[in-house]
Amino acid sequence: MANVSNILFIMCDQLRFDYLACYGHPHLETPNIDSLAERGVRFNSAFVQSPVCGPSRMCFYTGRYMSTHGTTINFSPLRVDELTLADYLSAKGERAAVTGKTHISGDREALQRLGIPLDNYIAKRRLEGGLEPYFRDDGLHPRVEQSRSATYNQDLRAAGYDADNPWLTYANSSIDERNRRLSGWFYESAKYPADIDEYYSETPYTTRKAMEFIEDAGEQPWCLHLSYIKPHWPYVAPRPYYDMYDTEHINPPNRSTEELVNAHPVYKAMTQDRISQAFSQGETRDAVIPAYMGLIKQIDDQVGMLMQFLADRDQLDDTVIIFTSDHGDQLGDHWLGDKDSFYEESIHIPLIVVDPRPSADATRGTVCDELVESIDLLPTILQMAGIEPDMNRLEGRSLIPLIDGSGVDQWRDYVICEMDYSYRYAREALDIPPTQCRAYMLRNHRWKFILYEGYRQQLFDLENDPQELNDLGKDPSHQVIRSQMENELFAWMRQRKHRITITDKHIDQMFSGDSQLKRGVYLGFWSEGELPKQFQNSK
Amino acid sequence: MANVSNILFIMCDQLRFDYLACYGHPHLETPNIDSLAERGVRFNSAFVQSPVCGPSRMCFYTGRYMSTHGTTINFSPLRVDELTLADYLSAKGERAAVTGKTHISGDREALQRLGIPLDNYIAKRRLEGGLEPYFRDDGLHPRVEQSRSATYNQDLRAAGYDADNPWLTYANSSIDERNRRLSGWFYESAKYPADIDEYYSETPYTTRKAMEFIEDAGEQPWCLHLSYIKPHWPYVAPRPYYDMYDTEHINPPNRSTEELVNAHPVYKAMTQDRISQAFSQGETRDAVIPAYMGLIKQIDDQVGMLMQFLADRDQLDDTVIIFTSDHGDQLGDHWLGDKDSFYEESIHIPLIVVDPRPSADATRGTVCDELVESIDLLPTILQMAGIEPDMNRLEGRSLIPLIDGSGVDQWRDYVICEMDYSYRYAREALDIPPTQCRAYMLRNHRWKFILYEGYRQQLFDLENDPQELNDLGKDPSHQVIRSQMENELFAWMRQRKHRITITDKHIDQMFSGDSQLKRGVYLGFWSEGELPKQFQNSK
Repeated sequence: MANVSNILFIMCDQLRFDYLACYGHPHLETPNIDSLAERGVRFNSAFVQSPVCGPSRMCFYTGRYMSTHGTTINFSPLRVDELTLADYLSAKGERAAVTGKTHISGDREALQRLGIPLDNYIAKRRLEGGLEPYFRDDGLHPRVEQSRSATYNQDLRAAGYDADNPWLTYANSSIDERNRRLSGWFYESAKYPADIDEYYSETPYTTRKAMEFIEDAGEQPWCLHLSYIKPHWPYVAPRPYYDMYDTEHINPPNRSTEELVNAHPVYKAMTQDRISQAFSQGETRDAVIPAYMGLIKQIDDQVGMLMQFLADRDQLDDTVIIFTSDHGDQLGDHWLGDKDSFYEESIHIPLIVVDPRPSADATRGTVCDELVESIDLLPTILQMAGIEPDMNRLEGRSLIPLIDGSGVDQWRDYVICEMDYSYRYAREALDIPPTQCRAYMLRNHRWKFILYEGYRQQLFDLENDPQELNDLGKDPSHQVIRSQMENELFAWMRQRKHRITITDKHIDQMFSGDSQLKRGVYLGFWSEGELPKQFQNSK
Repeated sequence: MANVSNILFIMCDQLRFDYLACYGHPHLETPNIDSLAERGVRFNSAFVQSPVCGPSRMCFYTGRYMSTHGTTINFSPLRVDELTLADYLSAKGERAAVTGKTHISGDREALQRLGIPLDNYIAKRRLEGGLEPYFRDDGLHPRVEQSRSATYNQDLRAAGYDADNPWLTYANSSIDERNRRLSGWFYESAKYPADIDEYYSETPYTTRKAMEFIEDAGEQPWCLHLSYIKPHWPYVAPRPYYDMYDTEHINPPNRSTEELVNAHPVYKAMTQDRISQAFSQGETRDAVIPAYMGLIKQIDDQVGMLMQFLADRDQLDDTVIIFTSDHGDQLGDHWLGDKDSFYEESIHIPLIVVDPRPSADATRGTVCDELVESIDLLPTILQMAGIEPDMNRLEGRSLIPLIDGSGVDQWRDYVICEMDYSYRYAREALDIPPTQCRAYMLRNHRWKFILYEGYRQQLFDLENDPQELNDLGKDPSHQVIRSQMENELFAWMRQRKHRITITDKHIDQMFSGDSQLKRGVYLGFWSEGELPKQFQNSK
């Protein structure tokens, strides 16, 4: 199978799996993304390894589970010896860059302990997780003093958006009917248009940076991580997207008042978070969701323009296109806002892979229901680029057999998701130490099992209760299935790849057969006469 | 409580807990080590985190469990951002050095990826786990070509031991009654004296290096890891130690033929190892054990000389002395040789701590039965040196309350030991991949529970079967205790400290109370009017 030249790895931030037409949204039309699905494989059961940006992204980028790579909350730096997709690719001469968000921070303290000046090339790459920061922008610029020099802000100012922090003042603020400027931090702002020309808003801007990069790359093989900041909050969309959708286009909330009765303590604390309280009110949903939909619609349009750009350059045939998201958004479902939960709304992601090679012709336009994890993408991409995945570190599984239709006897029985909620209000509400804020989910096609450290378990029957409204975590008649899944979770945990500095192959070579004898280490012999002949009388 | 100036951290290699007089050996007299016990606390239930040199030592040196630091077999380099005892101490101005063995290898590949020349100071320290290699010698020099330049070999040659590798030719070879030179690799050699003057044999040589270091350190506070290579194999002792003990001084083997009936598959494979087969024969034990005892006796004499040296320098009052071992030796017990098992013979270690400060007067000469782990030493030493232990990384617990007699309400319910036996013959016999060669032990005062990946569990009742001859792993009447202990093991595993680049305290500061608001991140608000007053109208 020929290798592909280029990888376009598109990620949205906080895009729910069910907010695309091809994933079944009844009102949101996304013809360009749908068209990717028609040209490739649409994975219908794809999940992230953590519902939070930073930890989830580090799983995508390292191909390892959250508790393996150790970045369990946002801003927790990736360990200095963790290897990423960009490291693997650039070691083979590919140009691996990002336009947009990564949420990566490198371990400055470790770099400094190791005597590496933070301004040298290697340190700079470590701070970017190995990626070339062609246009790195994590999408949030709340503090004026630290935002002034952001490239996006500089470019907005050059375009006439005069402010210290035009990201906030224009791109993420809207103007209400009384001509008041409302900060995008506040949900009421979502009802009004962002005070920026659509052309200069973040999504088109990031797309243009991607196009610039592709032009700049020329003939060198590249992997571009085009990582849209939206539809992540602040939830404000520019014209014409802000009012393309109305309250009549909002799916009804997936929640019941019974969920709040005898609620699981951690879930209950999460519902008491200010964000969840806001999204439990119709007013917030009615303001935010149309804007959220508009931001997705805008992404879809931009994806269309980008495809046209690639077509015009004759690059569609040698470019793999991956479209996905780093996690979802509760949007008030289950009385929750944001994404710190194991509900489908947070952990289930869209994932479309367009492999242009003839080997993938058989699966074009098909839907794959196998359980897929975000860590599967890294070995998939490496294999596409003709690089042998380092399975001593990688914990995912290449999706190639699902893409080329060759299939596998046995795929995967469950997906795993992990959460460290120590940074949420829930910890304060529960008054527990950060080390206790650990939670684990194991989900198969039928059941979702959740283990919270120090609290009772949760269980949902996805077949009979696909909306996850009935927590069976205390139900005595489900004790057996809970125990089984707890055992599976334990077995999963015992297989983590913490030993990364020596490979299984190396162990084989070092210790199998007569390799120790060859090194002059003779163990278990009474006398030299017992040694195999060829080792006798050697020094 | 005043800090102590100096730490003398003495470690033997492969010394069983029960081969010292103070730990109950009926024939082996160890008055100098016993005298340490009289001056300090003798821990009667101290265990290693892995029964293999390298992994066990990395636990001692990092204060973290094996599956946390990731060095699960010998020669697997310590990750480049793992911090060690030496790192913590030297950051505070202490001089932390080793004379003898550490079994540390640094991650050369990671250093090179990070652009750090292997010959620069920082890289060199990483390759030594942060220690100053005052005299580093891992004790095995099997290959002539790589051994010629070892300091020990150079010094032996200077003393007239003429050979390319006098470590093997003299120090670890013996001369039999027919004047034949027998390599110490072979068990028959243990019956004869090593062909070296006692003064030049490894244990006194290493002691002298320790004394040199102490003299060299002068007034600067120091931590010396005096790490004896013996009584680890090759089992040959110089005169007069080689024949101080005879077969009549050998404890009878702790084993029964019933152990081999319906034996656990992994245990059975371990008994089929060539080393185990050899030690299952009386001939091997009769030759090796007296030499093993002689090597211990020699260490005891050297400890005596070292104490006299410190007394002569008036340093006993400002030096903490720790005496321990990195694991034990089966010596044919349970039909096993070497140490790759969870039997007491392998995992139970001697541990004596002499704290010279008045605060420890109350416990001098006492025996502590609390369950102690090797990872407890690091926080203990740091606390003695007046350094706040970094509990974001460290997984052990300071022993100070057990040493100063202040006590604790609740100490520890169990100890953990882990093993990766992928490098042993057992893996070939079982024909399994390296990743499956994982085993875990959880031991409390009453029970020892063992989980082997892919095989049935083991259970021993230490109260009614202290010799561990009756494996209750299949016994239906012990299902409940096995399940309980399996659950405890799982709970332990969920608490590993994989997130090391950000502290719990930092999380508290970043996310508690109004710290997010202070950073300009306003989440969950409908409008600016809902913000606390002090944050309104801020940019």
